[in-house]
Amino acid sequence: MDEAALWQELAALAERAVGLSDPNPRVACRLVLADGRTFDGHTQAAGQAHAEVMALRAAQAAGADVRGATAYVTLEPCSHHGRTPPCCDALISAGVARVVVAAIDPNPRVAGQGVARLRAAGVAVEVLQPELPAAVATRELNIGFWSRMVRQRPWVRMKVAASLDGTTALPGGVSQWITGEAARADGHAWRRRAGALLTGIGTVRSDDPRLDVRLVPTARQPLRVVLDSALDIEPTARILQPPGEVLVYTALGAQATPAQTARRAALAALGVTVIDRPGPPKVPGGAPKVDLAAVLDDLAGREVNELHLEAGAKLNASWWRAGLVDELLLYLAPRLLGQGEPIAALGPLARLEDGWPLQFVSVQPLGGDLRILARVPGRAPL
Amino acid sequence: MDEAALWQELAALAERAVGLSDPNPRVACRLVLADGRTFDGHTQAAGQAHAEVMALRAAQAAGADVRGATAYVTLEPCSHHGRTPPCCDALISAGVARVVVAAIDPNPRVAGQGVARLRAAGVAVEVLQPELPAAVATRELNIGFWSRMVRQRPWVRMKVAASLDGTTALPGGVSQWITGEAARADGHAWRRRAGALLTGIGTVRSDDPRLDVRLVPTARQPLRVVLDSALDIEPTARILQPPGEVLVYTALGAQATPAQTARRAALAALGVTVIDRPGPPKVPGGAPKVDLAAVLDDLAGREVNELHLEAGAKLNASWWRAGLVDELLLYLAPRLLGQGEPIAALGPLARLEDGWPLQFVSVQPLGGDLRILARVPGRAPL
Repeated sequence: MDEAALWQELAALAERAVGLSDPNPRVACRLVLADGRTFDGHTQAAGQAHAEVMALRAAQAAGADVRGATAYVTLEPCSHHGRTPPCCDALISAGVARVVVAAIDPNPRVAGQGVARLRAAGVAVEVLQPELPAAVATRELNIGFWSRMVRQRPWVRMKVAASLDGTTALPGGVSQWITGEAARADGHAWRRRAGALLTGIGTVRSDDPRLDVRLVPTARQPLRVVLDSALDIEPTARILQPPGEVLVYTALGAQATPAQTARRAALAALGVTVIDRPGPPKVPGGAPKVDLAAVLDDLAGREVNELHLEAGAKLNASWWRAGLVDELLLYLAPRLLGQGEPIAALGPLARLEDGWPLQFVSVQPLGGDLRILARVPGRAPL
Repeated sequence: MDEAALWQELAALAERAVGLSDPNPRVACRLVLADGRTFDGHTQAAGQAHAEVMALRAAQAAGADVRGATAYVTLEPCSHHGRTPPCCDALISAGVARVVVAAIDPNPRVAGQGVARLRAAGVAVEVLQPELPAAVATRELNIGFWSRMVRQRPWVRMKVAASLDGTTALPGGVSQWITGEAARADGHAWRRRAGALLTGIGTVRSDDPRLDVRLVPTARQPLRVVLDSALDIEPTARILQPPGEVLVYTALGAQATPAQTARRAALAALGVTVIDRPGPPKVPGGAPKVDLAAVLDDLAGREVNELHLEAGAKLNASWWRAGLVDELLLYLAPRLLGQGEPIAALGPLARLEDGWPLQFVSVQPLGGDLRILARVPGRAPL
């Protein structure tokens, strides 16, 4: 097998860690023995084995002697004691002779130290050039991990489903369903990638979404997040029900009304975490709004790699105005709907240059719909 | 050469008749001689030679004897005396032994009679199945000719350039340029395909467009058409200047104001044709509006195959409401612009099912932009 094909198989294998390994990166490893036998592994759930250890275990289970073997890994083996012992040590003690690494780990606790530790133990190490497809694939698959390690904030992806003329809901609020089944299932596959799914109180009130992963199988549910400046959420909202953890960010400060205090207690009783991150009001003299950058900080502290936004036009606009969106995941249905809710309540602008620029990354037909991924220039590859 | 490759070459050759042969169909012909030599031709300007005659002339110029040759033609050879003598007769008298036809001519004056005439003269004729790629390619390239022959009206293509959130102009009217150079040149290539380019008085007043083909080379300029219910157009409008013919459709009836009468005379002096096609008002008691279906009838009578609409949101909406749009040619720029002019001023709708359905035909990156072609279901292939 040539190396390009090997790396393609490993990239596909690493994708199997999506919905499983968060907040750990999605990594795959293949051990190639002198006799040609191969053993594969990918990252398991956090606290469980990493890719290298899974591959070593597979070899061990088959009674294979891995001394002298080559290990191909999509990300630099870790050198630190995190939730598990360092993978470097496992490779060294198993007698692996050579390690080929697709990308250096951006985690400052690794960042080349894995390679150094292997070399110090006499293991031959090669690292691919960063522009090679296997290296790019690792960064793409782990774009949120990279973002959190390099920028100390999650990768922010905004998901929207709209008609071809940019309408996401009719004036009366009807939006179910603008796109077809294939697009909706694909949307859940992107939800599964995320460490957290975020919406606003407006969407909770109008659509009462569950905001979970249910149209595709998953081993874990992302954290669910509601931005609710005045803490208006009803404890009966579906997003507060199981499965999974829920965070509600408010703009409340020291003073709260009795109703807000009571609501806070009711939410606490449901196991919901309420966090105050007050920011300035949208208009001078208005009510304070949740500070979006502070929310990103807090979510990074909670090890959220990819943040998936599914909100209404007003909150979407706030994210764009704050300059905090990294990419737009847009599903376009082949129909015109005319006036209604827009993708983001932006403008009015005076000049075209004042718009929010993007770059198309990919366009994919899905059922009868179209999926467009577009990125803010300069945000990636990281 | 296998037949699939031959038909692909002929399809490319037939495309060279775009911007040249209107209102005649875009057709290519290849003569394959017994000694393996080949001679090609495609339709020239109306009144000049068709594809078969061009190929025969090329053979003649080379001193080749075409007796016993096979002729491959993308459309059935004509059997009637139009602006030129029938191509069937030219093939027969040249001694061509066999003709392979990609598609039967939908023109009721041909419609199988070309094949019959060839067979009657002892020529072997094969006709491809309509679902084969070469047959589909002929219909696609001649979709307007098919439309006019089968439905007695032009194929109506609406062209729009918008931001990813569906904004075609800022609230102040600024729209130049939302898309980049490659998309604009491509837009002119689509203009070149058209028999007529149509806009509304609103766009004439706000943008004063020339509405001609200038970013790509062309042998002819399409007819230019303005819908101007009350005959408000200024004789200084750039669309009234050369090159090419201009039609102005009004909703005026027998009675006209002195100003309208004067304007009509001024336009006549410029060589502009003013045609009254009054239809009902948009709102009860309002001023009459141009009857769009009557405009299509009139343009079909003027042998317009493809009608290219480039108008504002209001007129675009009228075309959609009348059910007369066949396809949408949408250029999407990778940016958000927020509120402004929409693709079409449609709605408000109460139900998603009341929207205007489309089907994606193709999606093509162009420079940094995206070109989407979407068709009204059931309109094509014809």
